[in-house]
Amino acid sequence: MSAPDLDPRSAREALRGIVGEVEAMSDDEVTDRYARLVWSTLVEPGDSVAHRFVAALGPAAALRELHAGMKAGVFARAGIDASDGDRGARRWLPRRKDDATRTALDAARRAGCIALCPGDEHWPARVDDLGAHAPLALWVRGDPALLSAPVPALALVGARAATGYGEAVAVEFAASLAATGVSIVSGAAYGIDGAAHRAALAAGGTTFALLAGGVDRPYPVGHSELISRIVSAGVVVSEAPCGTAPTKWRFLQRNRLIAALSDATVVVEAGWRSGSLNTAAHAASLGRPLGAVPGPITSAASTGCHRLLREFDARCITSADDARELLALHGDALWPASGGPLGTHSPHTDDRSRDDDRSRTDDRSRVLDALSTRTWRTGADVARHAGMAEQDVEGVLGLLLLDGAVKSSPSGWRMLPRAASPGIGR
Amino acid sequence: MSAPDLDPRSAREALRGIVGEVEAMSDDEVTDRYARLVWSTLVEPGDSVAHRFVAALGPAAALRELHAGMKAGVFARAGIDASDGDRGARRWLPRRKDDATRTALDAARRAGCIALCPGDEHWPARVDDLGAHAPLALWVRGDPALLSAPVPALALVGARAATGYGEAVAVEFAASLAATGVSIVSGAAYGIDGAAHRAALAAGGTTFALLAGGVDRPYPVGHSELISRIVSAGVVVSEAPCGTAPTKWRFLQRNRLIAALSDATVVVEAGWRSGSLNTAAHAASLGRPLGAVPGPITSAASTGCHRLLREFDARCITSADDARELLALHGDALWPASGGPLGTHSPHTDDRSRDDDRSRTDDRSRVLDALSTRTWRTGADVARHAGMAEQDVEGVLGLLLLDGAVKSSPSGWRMLPRAASPGIGR
Repeated sequence: MSAPDLDPRSAREALRGIVGEVEAMSDDEVTDRYARLVWSTLVEPGDSVAHRFVAALGPAAALRELHAGMKAGVFARAGIDASDGDRGARRWLPRRKDDATRTALDAARRAGCIALCPGDEHWPARVDDLGAHAPLALWVRGDPALLSAPVPALALVGARAATGYGEAVAVEFAASLAATGVSIVSGAAYGIDGAAHRAALAAGGTTFALLAGGVDRPYPVGHSELISRIVSAGVVVSEAPCGTAPTKWRFLQRNRLIAALSDATVVVEAGWRSGSLNTAAHAASLGRPLGAVPGPITSAASTGCHRLLREFDARCITSADDARELLALHGDALWPASGGPLGTHSPHTDDRSRDDDRSRTDDRSRVLDALSTRTWRTGADVARHAGMAEQDVEGVLGLLLLDGAVKSSPSGWRMLPRAASPGIGR
Repeated sequence: MSAPDLDPRSAREALRGIVGEVEAMSDDEVTDRYARLVWSTLVEPGDSVAHRFVAALGPAAALRELHAGMKAGVFARAGIDASDGDRGARRWLPRRKDDATRTALDAARRAGCIALCPGDEHWPARVDDLGAHAPLALWVRGDPALLSAPVPALALVGARAATGYGEAVAVEFAASLAATGVSIVSGAAYGIDGAAHRAALAAGGTTFALLAGGVDRPYPVGHSELISRIVSAGVVVSEAPCGTAPTKWRFLQRNRLIAALSDATVVVEAGWRSGSLNTAAHAASLGRPLGAVPGPITSAASTGCHRLLREFDARCITSADDARELLALHGDALWPASGGPLGTHSPHTDDRSRDDDRSRTDDRSRVLDALSTRTWRTGADVARHAGMAEQDVEGVLGLLLLDGAVKSSPSGWRMLPRAASPGIGR
């Protein structure tokens, strides 16, 4: 097996159309870019040893070291444990094939696929939170600018064996969120993933599909047309070079990219052992907000969601607005907490549920306004002051009691002083 | 209005059949007991000023003070703020009626109702956690010994406007728990409450019904027969003397007794403004474990439960076993963490779900046993070691990753050292 062709002229030729602004790059930049894509054919997704080795030496130098047979001390220079490095080299070396990179680049060119590398204009900064587990490169069909756009991205994932309930929820959330400018991230699978992508497209919004194999090989095959539509209106991304088959390992690593490319993850339906729980685990380990949609406890398709609620402190998500609230929990989010960056309501937004929320908040304020911090008032008094039915007032008072905002006694109700200050009474 | 008849002889006569072991009591005990029941006709449930006044002076002396017009300084001596005391007296005095206590005692006698006072053998110690909001006395039909029995008690409450789903869940939980010795506590209302009581009775278990009005006045009237059956096989309790009508205030205070008489509270279904949220608030303010059953987010009858999950850190309860686990969270519980005090499975227990739980735990152990803390193993290796299908192993590995019990790399899976120690790997 010969050393890879790192001649700048042929590398530049090979990268044309695959890597942006290749003409403006120096020879070193071009060979590094080419070498990085070679690495992308040598390693499996999420190989942190390869990532650290490439980061420490630079892609071209690291590749030359690999082909020179890894001289003694090279891993120590890269800050890598020698046995980790040796095990890595034993993984990478058998993969060397003279034509692997050319084959991947040719397939990419045929599929209209480009390659993004760290530092590229549209490289999505979110994935850098994966540290040494970040991808070496991303293979992209569709509009790469969507990946780096300063708009919120929500992962909506779930079981392939979804129920009608789960698919309806995925459609409702994806349509409402996409219509207000949130990018919907998912895995193009049957069931929840497909419903989320389709609804986002139907709402005229943006959606990202993350594939486990090459983006030139739509998977599942039954979603080929959906994946083509996502290429046209959104973006289809994989860490695996074109021509690569999806494997179980690559599905699990693809899940980490779904989580990493999203500001928050919501699991809509998941069985007890659903792969979506793996995506949830990645979101949690990245410190990204995690939500789960509850369902009937009699539905096997909701057991994984309930497990996330019970054991992993996932937020209970019951509406698109709850999902917006979850997105706002991601501290470095670049958009308003609710309503989305467009600041407008599209016809796809569920205005009914928004109105409900508003009336709930209004009732609460009206009841608080009708209470005193000093004197006890009966429910009837409060109802008269608030201009509400006594029965409704009792309900709101019960909730305010739940919040610790009011006190009750046989003489009636009193507001606790802290509830009177703005921003504390919810 | 004359002073109440605190003559020991006539008090003893009046209490016969209503208060236990009245013959063995001293004259002072008898007059105190009688005076306490007089107080119970004068005050509304949860009147903490009355509670503190009676506790400080003793029921008989406190009553004589009330009838003597509350001499200056009497509240100060009782450690009560003078204005609180004056407001209290203005609440209590208009209620004095010569025959109110006799009427209540006669109604109690006709209904086969007894009165429990603090210190009585069967006084339920759980309600003392209410402090100054504890009831002055409890009026009881059925077997009072159930109230003080060292067995777990679970409040199962929810909406009157329950759905078929909610009622089915209430029935399943109540039957399974009651069959393993857990007392089911509820409010005898239509919907969830009624379903819980009925299922507990059908399972041959114990159930407590807490009423807002007198226990001689079954409410709702449509549940008269159910309430009679609870009297026969369980216990029906109210803080209000016999003859008292239920009012909104008394319903809210009755909710606090449901929470206080239970080691944990589970809300099965609740609308956005359901009274069950008030019971939940009382459970939370008592520091008792609180659970909520999720349901479809499209069901109005589950919105209150989802609110408890989202905003009040209620535990997500999906099975009778989850409810048992919740009971075990109440530190001073006097029973094993699961399976109930009888230690046997009755036919009413959902054996299928138990078997599922067992197989889940077994799979987990088998996969952990098949992993090493030192070497990486592929999914196929682990499957072979564990004697499980590779697909099942991948699912379990995903969950173990979620728990932080294993690590994954391109070389396969490795167990983290702490997962190997007993009791930590779940």
